[in-house]
Amino acid sequence: MASESLPDFAAVVAAAGRLQGRVRRTPVMRSDAFDARAGRRVFFKCENLQTGGAFKLRGALNALLALPADARVTRVATHSSGNHGNALAIAARSLGLACTVVVPEGSSPPKVAAIEAAGARVVYCRPGISARETALADVLAREHAHVVHPFDDADVIAGQGTAALELLAEPLAFDTLVAPVGGGGLIGGTALAVRGLTDTCTVIGAEPAAADDAWRSFTSGRRVDAGVPDTIADGLRASIGVRNFELLRRHVDEVVTVSEAEIVAAMRIVLEDLKLLIEPSSAVAVAAVLGGRAAKLGGRVGVILSGGNVDLGRCPFLAGRA
Amino acid sequence: MASESLPDFAAVVAAAGRLQGRVRRTPVMRSDAFDARAGRRVFFKCENLQTGGAFKLRGALNALLALPADARVTRVATHSSGNHGNALAIAARSLGLACTVVVPEGSSPPKVAAIEAAGARVVYCRPGISARETALADVLAREHAHVVHPFDDADVIAGQGTAALELLAEPLAFDTLVAPVGGGGLIGGTALAVRGLTDTCTVIGAEPAAADDAWRSFTSGRRVDAGVPDTIADGLRASIGVRNFELLRRHVDEVVTVSEAEIVAAMRIVLEDLKLLIEPSSAVAVAAVLGGRAAKLGGRVGVILSGGNVDLGRCPFLAGRA
Repeated sequence: MASESLPDFAAVVAAAGRLQGRVRRTPVMRSDAFDARAGRRVFFKCENLQTGGAFKLRGALNALLALPADARVTRVATHSSGNHGNALAIAARSLGLACTVVVPEGSSPPKVAAIEAAGARVVYCRPGISARETALADVLAREHAHVVHPFDDADVIAGQGTAALELLAEPLAFDTLVAPVGGGGLIGGTALAVRGLTDTCTVIGAEPAAADDAWRSFTSGRRVDAGVPDTIADGLRASIGVRNFELLRRHVDEVVTVSEAEIVAAMRIVLEDLKLLIEPSSAVAVAAVLGGRAAKLGGRVGVILSGGNVDLGRCPFLAGRA
Repeated sequence: MASESLPDFAAVVAAAGRLQGRVRRTPVMRSDAFDARAGRRVFFKCENLQTGGAFKLRGALNALLALPADARVTRVATHSSGNHGNALAIAARSLGLACTVVVPEGSSPPKVAAIEAAGARVVYCRPGISARETALADVLAREHAHVVHPFDDADVIAGQGTAALELLAEPLAFDTLVAPVGGGGLIGGTALAVRGLTDTCTVIGAEPAAADDAWRSFTSGRRVDAGVPDTIADGLRASIGVRNFELLRRHVDEVVTVSEAEIVAAMRIVLEDLKLLIEPSSAVAVAAVLGGRAAKLGGRVGVILSGGNVDLGRCPFLAGRA
């Protein structure tokens, strides 16, 4: 694809300027116990403590703040399995805009409740990307709204990159940054931040083996579709986007897949070692650090903990079904 | 009791100086969702993220750092249901001292494992304060060691007060600080910090109704014994100490009790709203804020989240038995 439609490092820096004071500068945490398990020094960027419980506010808010002043937008809309919809609802409300979110059936009820609590209108659709897009088109046929895509959007990607920008501002000399890969907004922005700031840090994307479209795309060199994957990591079921795949292909060093059991085990380990609740999508990146299959994982690792929105009743070990 | 054996505000300030750079300045967190539940603004001092997973390192390390240079201490010892033993083990190791910890049978296995991992020798005893003291006396008959009491010690109390000192240094104009009450080290130090810094902030101690010796002592004006209480809040089973009761009596505005069900519900709420794992003893203070029975609870509240060491397999809802 043409480079001019891709965000670059300067776009991430510009996003950081726009978001200053509007998103939380989330803490970076670590644990001796976790480091002993991992056999390396690992630092966690806690986007599970971001407003809305996930990194997604960065991209959604940057997309709205980047709108031209004459765009006269009064309503925004998107489709989302949860965190992006919630983030867009929060971002819209903070700017006085109305918001409609198309949500696939089967999404986590607390995530949907949070979207409604943030003042957005929720419209349900069938799972799968084509059903989402059809439902969003139906919404747009009835009401005028500016669409903010969950991940395949240059401003969204640039906004997501600001988490890595903050992490890399710590005097920690990272050898590797690891982020989960769903649609690819976070890994795309993360890779831009890393490439803009250092020549020595590798970037690893982590994906559920049960939703390995990014891994298959990365290894084959052709973007493939995820279908309707069955993984506990509900934030990572989307297929990687066009812009996102291009950034993955250009700037990411390795994509690693992990099993569902590894995801649940990693969630539990972070709860025990770091006292932090993370959602399964975040645990995918943690599992990649613990799994021992990442060839390009260095000795000092930064992990983006992407979110903490967990339906406690559904999580296997939290509900006692481990 | 005589005032000269009690720590004062200056002792808390001195402790903060000694501990500077040796304990974590833990973050202060909040959540819109929690505030909506509580109907007030609530800020959490996250000692669950302290080294060792609890505030106890502050008191233990202050006690060791306050030893006179000519004391020639090479081994320290204590009795503890877990967090103080762990804290003393960590503090001792950091200063090159050996450590023995008497632990009551039935203590949380991960807490005991952490004590051993920190390099201390563990000696088991029967539960209850008299059995603990007898076992510690047996240890001291066989080896020379400096005893650091878990709570009834002026330097320990002063050290614990440094968490509240840090919290009150935030520009938040608290109306109330809430801390759990077990032996009374944390509430004693917290009360000293509050009284030293403000005339307008109330101090509330929170206790399990199933271990309500501090409440009974506070309301009757006479220190009573807890016996061997049956509460999930394993850090709050000790009876309030002599110095601790005196500080409670002089400086604390109210003691509130909460049920076991309220404790477990509060643990779950903090996990959902703040993405933080807290141990049941910490949840006691949270439950007191949510319970609606505290007469002296103001509109802007600080809560000391005392620790995050949870045996995930034992917690009712984490093990799926809720």
